[in-house]
Amino acid sequence: MSNREIPYKIYLEENEMPTQWYNVRADMKKKPAPLLNPGTLQPMTPEELGHVFCDELVKQELDDTTPYMDIPQEIQDFYKMYRPSPLVRAYCLEKKLGTPAKIYYKFEGNNTSGSHKLNSAIAQAYYAKQQGLKGVTTETGAGQWGTALSMACSYFDLDCKVYMVKVSYEQKPFRREVMRTYGASVTPSPSETTNVGKKILEAHPGTTGSLGCAISEAVEAATGMEGYRYVLGSVLSQVLLHQTVIGLETKKALEKYDITPDIIIGCAGGGSNLGGLLSPFMGEVLRGEKNYRFIAVEPASCPSLTRGKYAYDFCDTGMVCPLAKMYTLGSGFIPSANHAGGLRYHGMSSILSELYDQGLMEARSVEQTSVFEAAEQFARVEGILPAPESSHAIRVAIDEALKCKETGEAKTIVFGLTGTGYFDMTAYEKYNNGEMSDYIPTDADLQKGFDGIPQMPN
Amino acid sequence: MSNREIPYKIYLEENEMPTQWYNVRADMKKKPAPLLNPGTLQPMTPEELGHVFCDELVKQELDDTTPYMDIPQEIQDFYKMYRPSPLVRAYCLEKKLGTPAKIYYKFEGNNTSGSHKLNSAIAQAYYAKQQGLKGVTTETGAGQWGTALSMACSYFDLDCKVYMVKVSYEQKPFRREVMRTYGASVTPSPSETTNVGKKILEAHPGTTGSLGCAISEAVEAATGMEGYRYVLGSVLSQVLLHQTVIGLETKKALEKYDITPDIIIGCAGGGSNLGGLLSPFMGEVLRGEKNYRFIAVEPASCPSLTRGKYAYDFCDTGMVCPLAKMYTLGSGFIPSANHAGGLRYHGMSSILSELYDQGLMEARSVEQTSVFEAAEQFARVEGILPAPESSHAIRVAIDEALKCKETGEAKTIVFGLTGTGYFDMTAYEKYNNGEMSDYIPTDADLQKGFDGIPQMPN
Repeated sequence: MSNREIPYKIYLEENEMPTQWYNVRADMKKKPAPLLNPGTLQPMTPEELGHVFCDELVKQELDDTTPYMDIPQEIQDFYKMYRPSPLVRAYCLEKKLGTPAKIYYKFEGNNTSGSHKLNSAIAQAYYAKQQGLKGVTTETGAGQWGTALSMACSYFDLDCKVYMVKVSYEQKPFRREVMRTYGASVTPSPSETTNVGKKILEAHPGTTGSLGCAISEAVEAATGMEGYRYVLGSVLSQVLLHQTVIGLETKKALEKYDITPDIIIGCAGGGSNLGGLLSPFMGEVLRGEKNYRFIAVEPASCPSLTRGKYAYDFCDTGMVCPLAKMYTLGSGFIPSANHAGGLRYHGMSSILSELYDQGLMEARSVEQTSVFEAAEQFARVEGILPAPESSHAIRVAIDEALKCKETGEAKTIVFGLTGTGYFDMTAYEKYNNGEMSDYIPTDADLQKGFDGIPQMPN
Repeated sequence: MSNREIPYKIYLEENEMPTQWYNVRADMKKKPAPLLNPGTLQPMTPEELGHVFCDELVKQELDDTTPYMDIPQEIQDFYKMYRPSPLVRAYCLEKKLGTPAKIYYKFEGNNTSGSHKLNSAIAQAYYAKQQGLKGVTTETGAGQWGTALSMACSYFDLDCKVYMVKVSYEQKPFRREVMRTYGASVTPSPSETTNVGKKILEAHPGTTGSLGCAISEAVEAATGMEGYRYVLGSVLSQVLLHQTVIGLETKKALEKYDITPDIIIGCAGGGSNLGGLLSPFMGEVLRGEKNYRFIAVEPASCPSLTRGKYAYDFCDTGMVCPLAKMYTLGSGFIPSANHAGGLRYHGMSSILSELYDQGLMEARSVEQTSVFEAAEQFARVEGILPAPESSHAIRVAIDEALKCKETGEAKTIVFGLTGTGYFDMTAYEKYNNGEMSDYIPTDADLQKGFDGIPQMPN
């Protein structure tokens, strides 16, 4: 540690920003398992994936050996509109906690999509445009990803069709309007516009939808239209690749001030943020250069890492997507209705699942009232109103800092603050009114989801 | 202009941030007219103002000769949590417009209050704390100021009582919840908690309130409680003083790259943002060192500068506040119900009013559909979703840039982007659905407001 005083916010210069993404799979000796064709159970070929995804993104998805991939200049230019994001020293939080720990957070909420999702949205839109496509389809739950994709498509004049989980479409009209302001069309899912939507509506009239349903609809819509492809905001290896811009910036910012983190913490739903944040650091561990603790934080009500099974499973409810090997609660699992935030996907990215399985990463689950308690504490001293998702990481960062207070250790803690909570005030209102409750699924609840995981032949 | 390439975002280093506010009144030969006691019509004394405002803020309010005032270290430290704000080169907007103009905007929306209001809120809370007060009261309309003050009070452990215009309280529950998350108590105004509120409710049962009513209630509440003072988010000279941090940062950022602006544009409601942005530049003009064009932009539906009278008037509906000399539409003026954003105050800060009267500043009024058109155009290329208020400045910046396109002039345009529009999606929805309309008050409409302006003896 140098004697140079650490500022509140460390910003990189534009010429220090990453020009390549880092592909952590290249440094993994045991690679994440490949996507499988659900019919043949053989690894998906580039041709098969090319029906669903853009060609260049298929290449990125399948490439587990190239460590660095160039960020096209147009994407670098777009990144400059809202990046580099600040790495903030949480001086005020440290003081409030009375901890000797040094806490840093990488804040990704300073863009209109309100989260890190834009980092991959702009890349996926760019490749779609390069391929001469007319547009893309996607699903969105809470709406961060849909907003980010709408912004990216608007920038490249691409059509953008978003299937939004019906309950969110109705309860979050503002999110919907942001997407419309950026020119996207937004359809509540399940809908009558797709066969899979119609089937789901027939089987479950009055259903308010799920992320898994919306994925199925978006995939069907993309593959049924000339000049369209499907894009996804998390889980996939290509998404984690794009999100490494978070980790690369964080690493460079820390190095500028000779700071070495002890613990790196991120919330984990599908894994896009944590995967992006930890990749460059994990690379050092995989190459035997350094040692860090990594902690994935997930909701106790959707505990794919801490209580799920490591198995091949469907990525969507309609079972139209490839099979992925991941920690999963089963594609039929839907978190309890009282669960307020995002982080409600049934599975976890194959990359993070494999790293966790190899013991290179820890996982912890937290209950939502304790998450909102941490969110409010953070907001009051650090100024930023955090998204419920991001606040999972805050919870564990505070817990670790309080442990340091007990032991007297001055550990350096880095966490990802993925976004802002402006569109989550209904949840904050519940918390403010003392009406928020916790829910931990029983083993029997989980078993129902596990029963839907397909049996694989040996 | 140097050959050094201008980055997308110019950030100052922490050690380049202002350590003093600039008081433009010190350089004005003809000073803004003093606040008057409505009973005696004599200038308000420090003792009289001290019943309403904190002592140190009274000093700042009355001091029109000291050019620079130190920013206390605690406030500088708080500023570091969200400042310096970026000065952004609008490369993407310039390209979209095909203009030779160079457009810059100072973006104040990157904090949880979502606007520049925090710059003064933290100062006012600090001085209240220094004076040993228990808390402060205030009013809020759209909610940006109330949010900012809640954050500032939470930081200093001060009680914060916000009177929120009833229509906003009901239509903007999320704003209300942000304030509650920061620990403020929020009361819909008019309320039964004050005499002036009761009177207004008796006279106008079912009224949805106005900013002028809420001010009266907040002042009554503050003066009726031991250890409380009233604080205000705009109009006052002390507020413009604190907001000069915007202009000082902007000036230094431009100087770092040898950029000289031709036109400086800001939206103007009470004048806090524009006053803060233009003050240091206006100082150069007043001292005969430089020449710039300044343009204040206001809504056509609340045109205090372009169609108001320059006269002493009440600052609030209940007429409990001092009289201020300002461009005013009369304290009884309420903008048409179809007016979507803020910028709905009947008067304009005395400083800006006097500068405008001296011909040192221009003013322009714009209609709201053209404002939202500019907002959407800006959002799609620059990424940021602007507040309706800020978008008034965007409208005129675009208009000026398009004039440059016609004439071929490469003027440098700087405008203030005061905040984000996350809590204004109802207005965006109206615009997206083609349901937004314009309204320009007739001369007869305005006359009703003018009739309420008090007659002053010669």
